Amino acid sequence: MPKLSRQITGLTGNGDDGWSLFSRARAMKAAGLPILELTIGEHDTGTDPAILDEMHRAARAGHTGYAAVPGIAPLRRAVAEHLGAATGRAFGPENVLITPGGQAALFAAHHAACDPGDHALLIDPYYATYPGTIRAVGAVPVAVPTRAEVGFQPEEARLAAAAEGATSLLINSPNNPTGAVYDEATLAGIARVAEAQDLWVISDEVYDSQVWQGRHVPFAALPGMADRTLTVGSLSKSHAMTGSRLGWVAGPPEAIERLITLATHTTYGVPGYIQEAALFALRSGPETAARVAAPFLRRRDMVLACLARQQVLSAIPPQGAMYVMLDVRRTGMTGRGFAEALLDAEHVAVMPGESFGSAAAGHVRVALTLPDPEFAEAIDRLFAFAVRQAEKV
Amino acid sequence: MPKLSRQITGLTGNGDDGWSLFSRARAMKAAGLPILELTIGEHDTGTDPAILDEMHRAARAGHTGYAAVPGIAPLRRAVAEHLGAATGRAFGPENVLITPGGQAALFAAHHAACDPGDHALLIDPYYATYPGTIRAVGAVPVAVPTRAEVGFQPEEARLAAAAEGATSLLINSPNNPTGAVYDEATLAGIARVAEAQDLWVISDEVYDSQVWQGRHVPFAALPGMADRTLTVGSLSKSHAMTGSRLGWVAGPPEAIERLITLATHTTYGVPGYIQEAALFALRSGPETAARVAAPFLRRRDMVLACLARQQVLSAIPPQGAMYVMLDVRRTGMTGRGFAEALLDAEHVAVMPGESFGSAAAGHVRVALTLPDPEFAEAIDRLFAFAVRQAEKV
Repeated sequence: MPKLSRQITGLTGNGDDGWSLFSRARAMKAAGLPILELTIGEHDTGTDPAILDEMHRAARAGHTGYAAVPGIAPLRRAVAEHLGAATGRAFGPENVLITPGGQAALFAAHHAACDPGDHALLIDPYYATYPGTIRAVGAVPVAVPTRAEVGFQPEEARLAAAAEGATSLLINSPNNPTGAVYDEATLAGIARVAEAQDLWVISDEVYDSQVWQGRHVPFAALPGMADRTLTVGSLSKSHAMTGSRLGWVAGPPEAIERLITLATHTTYGVPGYIQEAALFALRSGPETAARVAAPFLRRRDMVLACLARQQVLSAIPPQGAMYVMLDVRRTGMTGRGFAEALLDAEHVAVMPGESFGSAAAGHVRVALTLPDPEFAEAIDRLFAFAVRQAEKV
Repeated sequence: MPKLSRQITGLTGNGDDGWSLFSRARAMKAAGLPILELTIGEHDTGTDPAILDEMHRAARAGHTGYAAVPGIAPLRRAVAEHLGAATGRAFGPENVLITPGGQAALFAAHHAACDPGDHALLIDPYYATYPGTIRAVGAVPVAVPTRAEVGFQPEEARLAAAAEGATSLLINSPNNPTGAVYDEATLAGIARVAEAQDLWVISDEVYDSQVWQGRHVPFAALPGMADRTLTVGSLSKSHAMTGSRLGWVAGPPEAIERLITLATHTTYGVPGYIQEAALFALRSGPETAARVAAPFLRRRDMVLACLARQQVLSAIPPQGAMYVMLDVRRTGMTGRGFAEALLDAEHVAVMPGESFGSAAAGHVRVALTLPDPEFAEAIDRLFAFAVRQAEKV
């Protein structure tokens, strides 16, 4: 076999890719063990049958050929309207490229912003694919740590120090894994750094429909920022369409034009019938997303109630998204150690904080993604396990 | 707006991307003009409704969440069986990554083979996305021209001269746009060069079900080649599933393992319900692909009959795929000039040969993709137009 490229062999850096616990839990489940999975951001409900029926209608009506690579015009328009309403700024179809999922949008946005060797900033803790996404375009991920003490809000001074000579900054609010929703002061600080260093800001806003406290401000809504922002969106989380791989990048038309050319060479478009289904989902109004989001708030509050009843685990109450980050350090364990032991002892799978960067060490991320009764059972086991561990310390 | 990356602004090289005529024809059609389109490789029939019904069944059964990134196990197995039968070599699921379409597979394969700056060979004429796909991973496309005089078969001496210091070689048989099916001597020559220069061979075999003369030999079937071959396949052409974006890369397990990690960071998998539909399509047996292919042979023969009745246009009879390359030089026009004038005068859209590289200059590519009556009308107009043009010379 000839040598594989350094850019593919180096994708996961020196460590693992953060998914080993997830893979182990899936393998145990496949082997028949009754694993309670609170790992990935996968809704316990599937996609609304009405959306699937619309998909089938479109397919049977003949939308099975190549769809326009930028996305079908009415969907680009619908996404532009969604962003226009959220930002109060002008968005048209020329600002939008439809992609096969939010991950493809993250990859494409970094491809547009960064050349090989460029420094691309990201905020630690981060979604597990971020560093590899940056490496996949040949750029160098530079993590800027946040601190639990300030609710995992990115701090301007730290950003400014890291940003010198960098090309892009990837932000994510509402945040996975921390649940932080960036406040106005945070956003203003990011904008100042972006302006001063002429950074592209890649703003992953896929959790924008899941806000429990505060208010989601799209980064492109900030004064002067629309022209340097590539917004990543998706229907995965908002409409329980994770498996349909339907996302977008929105940004300045000159950037979108180049991104369309990139899409011609990397994916060649998104199935037309999925785009028709997405259009139907967006047109069904914000109530649909609100209905999808409701269980996560309810389960978040179940975790907060558990937290109030004990002293071992602690958390910053998540302001958004579908996760709670639990600080497990009082058990004497690392996040990874806790997650691995919990999986073996209790058959409950949560993600080690270390999968999300060094700033999340000593934490585990609990996805709020089981029906309430199973979820209650899973967190009962988790808290009882933590208390037992702490007694051994 | 900050600067866009050189890797995205440089994607199309110095020229246009070869799609301008196609875009103009689509715009004319959208404006209400009755354009007869023989541009892209898009079947005039849509996807078989039975495949779409299976897709809907899978979706309604709940396969709407994240599918496993490498592809669902039974589909990886079915693709492996297909390749095993075609090559007579051992293929298992560990040799297969399911991708969102053949284009994504081409991109991923080059990503695995090439680092920025590496030389990646391709055969001229070539499918229009090839050079940009190579540039999208930072590599340098090096075109190796073929000659109409030898039926557009790649010649070993030319390959050997170009291959020194190169990393990969992209081949495509049955070939788009020329219709060439590489013969045994050609394949043996390619294998010798690949061996001598330790090249990855990226073998685009998406037209493997459309062979009119000769026999398709998968490159991985050649002695000693399986370990250096990344085979690109898809259901787009074989099963009229172009819009569904379902393809694969097959290769050595060590390469596939890395490609799965890449997929985690670029696309995060393929919709599960589309994979179920693909599995159904593959399990329906080779008759399905044969039924999809039949009209292209019929229409190819219609073009050959037209050719026999005049002296202006000429062609190498295509041995496979869904196109005919017509030599238009006796009209005194370039391929581009001919295609543009034909579109304006006759509302028939064909692709300029120049869109496929310099070796196809003075040609146009006719896609065999309209129902027989419209197809007959379109080629009648095309041949009459050519004859009129030649009279002016």
